[in-house]
Amino acid sequence: MPEYAAPVRDLEFVLHELLNVETSGIEGYDALEPDLTGAILEEAGKLAGNVLAPLNLVGDTQGCKLENGVVRTPEGFADAYAQMCEGGWSGLDCDPEYGGQGMPYILNTAVGEIFVSANMAFQMYLGLTHGAYSAIHAHGTDDQKATYLPNMVSGQWSGTMNLTEPHCGTDLGLMRTKAEPQGDGTYAITGQKIFISAGEHDLTENIVHLVLAKIPGGPEGIKGVSLFIVPKFLVNDDGSLGNRNSVTCGKIEEKMGIHGNATCVMNYDGATGYLLGAEHKGMRAMFTMMNEARLGVGLQGYAQAEPAYQAALDYAQERLQGRAVTGDENPDGPADPLIVHPDIRRNLMDQKSFIEGARAFTLWGAQMIDRAHRENDDLAEGIISLLTPVLKGFLTDQGFEMTVQAQQVFGGHGYIEETGMSQFARDARIAMIYEGANGVQALDLVGRKLGADGGKPMMAFFEMVKTFIKDHEADTALKADILDPLKAASKELQTSAMFFVQSGVKNPNEALAGSYDFMHLFGHVVLGYMWARMAVVATKALADCTGDPAFYEAKLATARYYMARRLPAVEMHRARILSGASTVMALEAANF
Amino acid sequence: MPEYAAPVRDLEFVLHELLNVETSGIEGYDALEPDLTGAILEEAGKLAGNVLAPLNLVGDTQGCKLENGVVRTPEGFADAYAQMCEGGWSGLDCDPEYGGQGMPYILNTAVGEIFVSANMAFQMYLGLTHGAYSAIHAHGTDDQKATYLPNMVSGQWSGTMNLTEPHCGTDLGLMRTKAEPQGDGTYAITGQKIFISAGEHDLTENIVHLVLAKIPGGPEGIKGVSLFIVPKFLVNDDGSLGNRNSVTCGKIEEKMGIHGNATCVMNYDGATGYLLGAEHKGMRAMFTMMNEARLGVGLQGYAQAEPAYQAALDYAQERLQGRAVTGDENPDGPADPLIVHPDIRRNLMDQKSFIEGARAFTLWGAQMIDRAHRENDDLAEGIISLLTPVLKGFLTDQGFEMTVQAQQVFGGHGYIEETGMSQFARDARIAMIYEGANGVQALDLVGRKLGADGGKPMMAFFEMVKTFIKDHEADTALKADILDPLKAASKELQTSAMFFVQSGVKNPNEALAGSYDFMHLFGHVVLGYMWARMAVVATKALADCTGDPAFYEAKLATARYYMARRLPAVEMHRARILSGASTVMALEAANF
Repeated sequence: MPEYAAPVRDLEFVLHELLNVETSGIEGYDALEPDLTGAILEEAGKLAGNVLAPLNLVGDTQGCKLENGVVRTPEGFADAYAQMCEGGWSGLDCDPEYGGQGMPYILNTAVGEIFVSANMAFQMYLGLTHGAYSAIHAHGTDDQKATYLPNMVSGQWSGTMNLTEPHCGTDLGLMRTKAEPQGDGTYAITGQKIFISAGEHDLTENIVHLVLAKIPGGPEGIKGVSLFIVPKFLVNDDGSLGNRNSVTCGKIEEKMGIHGNATCVMNYDGATGYLLGAEHKGMRAMFTMMNEARLGVGLQGYAQAEPAYQAALDYAQERLQGRAVTGDENPDGPADPLIVHPDIRRNLMDQKSFIEGARAFTLWGAQMIDRAHRENDDLAEGIISLLTPVLKGFLTDQGFEMTVQAQQVFGGHGYIEETGMSQFARDARIAMIYEGANGVQALDLVGRKLGADGGKPMMAFFEMVKTFIKDHEADTALKADILDPLKAASKELQTSAMFFVQSGVKNPNEALAGSYDFMHLFGHVVLGYMWARMAVVATKALADCTGDPAFYEAKLATARYYMARRLPAVEMHRARILSGASTVMALEAANF
Repeated sequence: MPEYAAPVRDLEFVLHELLNVETSGIEGYDALEPDLTGAILEEAGKLAGNVLAPLNLVGDTQGCKLENGVVRTPEGFADAYAQMCEGGWSGLDCDPEYGGQGMPYILNTAVGEIFVSANMAFQMYLGLTHGAYSAIHAHGTDDQKATYLPNMVSGQWSGTMNLTEPHCGTDLGLMRTKAEPQGDGTYAITGQKIFISAGEHDLTENIVHLVLAKIPGGPEGIKGVSLFIVPKFLVNDDGSLGNRNSVTCGKIEEKMGIHGNATCVMNYDGATGYLLGAEHKGMRAMFTMMNEARLGVGLQGYAQAEPAYQAALDYAQERLQGRAVTGDENPDGPADPLIVHPDIRRNLMDQKSFIEGARAFTLWGAQMIDRAHRENDDLAEGIISLLTPVLKGFLTDQGFEMTVQAQQVFGGHGYIEETGMSQFARDARIAMIYEGANGVQALDLVGRKLGADGGKPMMAFFEMVKTFIKDHEADTALKADILDPLKAASKELQTSAMFFVQSGVKNPNEALAGSYDFMHLFGHVVLGYMWARMAVVATKALADCTGDPAFYEAKLATARYYMARRLPAVEMHRARILSGASTVMALEAANF
């Protein structure tokens, strides 16, 4: 069973040395002193390593069981959940008015990485609650907030998001679930929702479902969708639990992974629902939190790659097999450790350079979200909205690929479930699908975000990279190994964006046929930018002799690796994009 | 549950229009008239579609069970196995002297694709037997052949290959299983072997294990390994079954996939073994059949992608979600089918262009193997030996990736086991690992095959591509869309090979650090070459009006897609390769 050690040092590096959180001037960030963040990350790491990680394989093996409408979570999950709530982890960045600790979102993101790495299926129970909390917090009436939020912040109640129906996932305009006004301000919700994570379980005494449904007589399609609060148990005026609502779990799905989280078919049979936000504005309410929700899923991508990498690295250091081609490195042993082999190193460096780059990207994104919300910074909002589909799509695709590479280091042992390497890949796979499948992210990026606000956020991103390069290219070593490749990659991105602008006007398929490649090209440029920034920080730290030279030298070496070995993917993506739509759309559907 | 329809038309296209098997002058190929191959492929397709494919999900769900040393295969497997034997499929290309049908290996390969696509875990029982058959046929004494082969050809007995031990997989020199001479010509085999596919099961009355072991006192390491026949039941002189041998299945592994095939820990406790081939020449005996064995695994890569693609295509044609950006294509329905979306088409075209290209590569490879064996053609042997690691490594990596892409078309439904899409990915994953993990294939390619025979096979490959381009570039349409990209890609491959030759002399790590990328670069060039050849055939067929224009037009469109959208990967691989070893090897192992 893989062990997990939280990468506290690297998280601190990103927070304090790369992003300088405590001096970044964002409201509330002054609290993020290294002493505090260090203590919080250490505590989270202990809980993750000692309690959550040991339950990861248990959760995968046992899965959840549905019996007479009751879902039993795997052994140990209830205890672990209680410990999470007791530690206040469920409300770390929640509103103090409802019992939260009011920390910035960025800190919750850093802590979230740790918990997701340790046990993704488990952490989803808390993640879903957080999403529902955010929606009620943003759109609820004072009464609704008072009724639901305190128990959600404390973790006593959990939450869910109900969007998908059997015949519609991406295209929610086809939705059939209906909400009929009952004359008393409530609605009767009837319909079936599928793929509801944490839809039913035994961890909390109540579950607050947020459900999208159509009020009869409203506008057609997506414009007639409203959002409702549908608690499993109705809540009495005094806050105590009342009657069981008419919502039941009809089935839990057998899935490829995240077995520890119950994915439910939820049947609403005239269940009592309370309108959240305005009538017919359900999508807007649901999507207020979209950047955070998608960032959280992008995070799952690299957060699954992290423990898989830790396990692969351990294995590569310990497993003796073959000899280094340049001469024995373990002459007294029967063979050398795997890590002497260049191709094993390539594999490990791919993982390491991805994960650390992705961590920087994600926390930088979280900082932008905080800046947008806490400072009402429209440009930050614009840039993170642009980058969100990249973060979600690119990090989950690559994160999955890296779990597969980590599994490969184990050879045949990686295919056996007891090593846990298969689980990382199987669990990571879902992040490419949910919260908007990655093809939909690419469509969002090219179809909406690229040209949003007259292209201002996109131009601002290019400008940011350009300025950064200009500011640092006096350092010739940095220039050659790091900044020049970044400049070239950024140019490929610009060329591709211009191609879309020019050809997409005539035929939108010209842009959409390259959308997936553009998302990946963009992702590589962002990670290249992150690595260049980290290289600058590391160079300075080494020059200043701030201690821990091995750490900074490893950062520099990994930055160089990313530029030399990962960034060349942009050439491929650019070539594909510029080939346009003709070969993609040539075949008649019937002739496939 | 996915349905499977054997791609008989495409197999016939490759056999008869691309490879012209019946007129290729290889001994025994004159039998491969279209009437015969068509009838055989149709029959195989029926058995695959009606019997094997419906058991695929059953096998995955039920898996194999070990009880009191007996392994029970999933329901229906025994019946299906009996039908396979009855139809003579187990001996299609086996020696008629032992009851086989003596067909060329290429036909067995084409048929094998169909069975693997329908049910990979099931087909492995026959595949392992075939491998053991080949080793005994090549290295056995007349007595050994007479004793074992007839019942293996008929399928009454099955076979296995026992190489791996807990502490050694790739590095078999570390092997501990020992074979002590008993003075009567037999050996007592003692040790533990792991990951033994089909090691124990209820499909046959006897299992013929081929076991690698060391005779005490022999040379150290890999040079002291011998190969033994260790039957589960000893065979009496009259051919009847005698005593149970001291070989038992200690455990079956819980794996990521291929659940229908029992992966066994085999314990040999002084079991009676018979030397196969010469003492200490076990590796040589085991590896006589390496090209075939690895081609068979490369085939599994694209053969899993095929049914996944069929299912994804059906889904994309039927699932209504969203609208085409260029105007409704299903105006009377609630939404358009998924296939109208450019990114879904990109996904499907990736799959289609890979699978058809891989099929051509694999059958071309099988033809070279036949040419090498049946005509003693050393150049064919050299070229297929060079291409074997490419075929195995590239096709299984890409095949797995394509099953993941197919799963993605299904959105959330792809993550649910009952659609079968997860199984394709989980089953395909093993092919990247066994029969030499893909990193080992890359090492074999760059470390041994590239420079083999003074580089003659490599030069012959380049020459073949060059000549082909020269012969056809008068056709300007072909030249621009197809041949020029192939020429450029082939040049990238040459540049990379030259880099290895020049820099690898000074430091072998310079070559090995790029080995994995080289394997993929090479794979793309081979598939590009296959597509160019198919495009030439299709162009001619259209000009000659030989009928079925939609088929040939689809071939041309898919060839153009491959060149425009898949081949650009060579630019990325070349850039990575030319960056050399420095960034790969920079970090001290302790500083990861």
